[in-house]
Amino acid sequence: MQDLIIIGGGPAGITAGIYAARQKLNTLLITKSFGGQIAKKAVAIENYPGFEEISGSELVEKFKGHLEKQEIEIKVSEVRKVEKEGEVFIVFTGTKEKYLSKTVIIATGADPRPLEVPGEKEFIGKGVSYCVTCDGPVFKDKIIAVVGGGDTGFEAAVFMTNYAREIYILEASSKIKADQRNQEIVKKSGKVKVLTNAVLKEIKGKSFVESITYQDLKTKKIKNLKVKALFVEVGNQPATSFVKNLVDFNKNDEIKVEFETCQTKTPGLFAVGDVNVGIYKQIVTACGEGCKAALSAYRYLQKLKYKT
Amino acid sequence: MQDLIIIGGGPAGITAGIYAARQKLNTLLITKSFGGQIAKKAVAIENYPGFEEISGSELVEKFKGHLEKQEIEIKVSEVRKVEKEGEVFIVFTGTKEKYLSKTVIIATGADPRPLEVPGEKEFIGKGVSYCVTCDGPVFKDKIIAVVGGGDTGFEAAVFMTNYAREIYILEASSKIKADQRNQEIVKKSGKVKVLTNAVLKEIKGKSFVESITYQDLKTKKIKNLKVKALFVEVGNQPATSFVKNLVDFNKNDEIKVEFETCQTKTPGLFAVGDVNVGIYKQIVTACGEGCKAALSAYRYLQKLKYKT
Repeated sequence: MQDLIIIGGGPAGITAGIYAARQKLNTLLITKSFGGQIAKKAVAIENYPGFEEISGSELVEKFKGHLEKQEIEIKVSEVRKVEKEGEVFIVFTGTKEKYLSKTVIIATGADPRPLEVPGEKEFIGKGVSYCVTCDGPVFKDKIIAVVGGGDTGFEAAVFMTNYAREIYILEASSKIKADQRNQEIVKKSGKVKVLTNAVLKEIKGKSFVESITYQDLKTKKIKNLKVKALFVEVGNQPATSFVKNLVDFNKNDEIKVEFETCQTKTPGLFAVGDVNVGIYKQIVTACGEGCKAALSAYRYLQKLKYKT
Repeated sequence: MQDLIIIGGGPAGITAGIYAARQKLNTLLITKSFGGQIAKKAVAIENYPGFEEISGSELVEKFKGHLEKQEIEIKVSEVRKVEKEGEVFIVFTGTKEKYLSKTVIIATGADPRPLEVPGEKEFIGKGVSYCVTCDGPVFKDKIIAVVGGGDTGFEAAVFMTNYAREIYILEASSKIKADQRNQEIVKKSGKVKVLTNAVLKEIKGKSFVESITYQDLKTKKIKNLKVKALFVEVGNQPATSFVKNLVDFNKNDEIKVEFETCQTKTPGLFAVGDVNVGIYKQIVTACGEGCKAALSAYRYLQKLKYKT
């Protein structure tokens, strides 16, 4: 029986792990991989306080090293289900093992949201990608497109200015949501064309992507762009279905929490970082929440001890 | 007229500054000094994710360097009062200047809480201290006492094991609140005696501190300890009186906020880090809140723009 099981190895889960270990909680951290979305960051990270500029992979290594210095058990696995019986949580993994714990912190982050247009599934790995750092450099001197006018879309475009000849950003709404700094960098590059009111309709090609079609919502016209690659950056969907019996969701499947402690509606169950309903999905906010949840779990366990 | 004035230069204020500048808000940060409580940390910091072990002064330098790289105006001054007229905040400083802004983030942290016992004021700088890193090393091979059985009290004691011959920790309640790890380190040192139920009554001496008296709440007896120094670590009181007309407080004078955005009851006015009612006063939670408030200020300003 664990004091605490942390599910997820991104910044939120890692911070929870550091704090839990320092509180001498008997802690197990289960994760598929480390770093969460940081590991896939297309551009240098400039907004995690203390590091003026650091690559995603470097920051992941620092976080992971910090975690591994603690007294904490780590298992690389995927969690399939969490149940609660009485005051005990049962955590089931993909390898059919199960683990018991008095408290659980969910820090499973979010996965890229697909567009669900014709051609998307067919061309995954053949020009359609959800990870610009992974697949971008292949498209040197090519024309490419990014779908999504938020920060991740703009950051993907900024990254691709180092490789591609020409870049289109397609944003379905009439307004760009990326922050001012990202918009400036894109503008300065001279390589990027931003299309608003542009809704992607189809991805076409033979063995590989050759073109995309989109509708211009203002003119209602269908237009065609010759591109060799399409990077999908339209947000994320939280990985939360495995816990659906124990929490409440908003319409985006994000877990509702009380933000001072990050506790869900189930006592002893916490949700931190990109899986919860928080508006701001930043590395440093994920870390702050991981800390709050670990210290809340510690408090909850102290009360539990006192009760029996 | 500023978009944003941030008051305070600790981890919360600095993170708010980094995020505000990246959002291209026209931002002024006013602070008495940099680093807040980190600057006074007695032992290495091991719980800010990304740095396995770093001294307080080093972390402050990293934070400060990160902030100074941004496009942000910084003024070293003390804020005396904040008022709101219509939708404009007016910030008054000690030098009688005043600044106008559309939003304000309060990140003024907290100052050490005094004991308010006879002899305390008299012996400040003569054996009574609120900063063990500042004043501790002087008391090499001496017997000293720390008042407060929380983390800062234990950390002060840990620091003093490098210098003092013998250390007493006096805790007024029956229970130690310091985290398990701090308790272990103190135990291992063999130099520290922890006294619970011990309420300090008086500090005595001639030119310098010579002894302290305390009451043992269990036996009701008054006891005496010969010590050359007394470090006061009984928590902090938030520096919030300058804003009292615009916010609600809890009984500790901490500012009530809505934790998802860190907004106070006054629209456009935010409070982050140790000044707000949050239970967990950690560097990383302060940073997370600074980020949330800056992005919330940005949202508030976007709405304001849209309105007019």
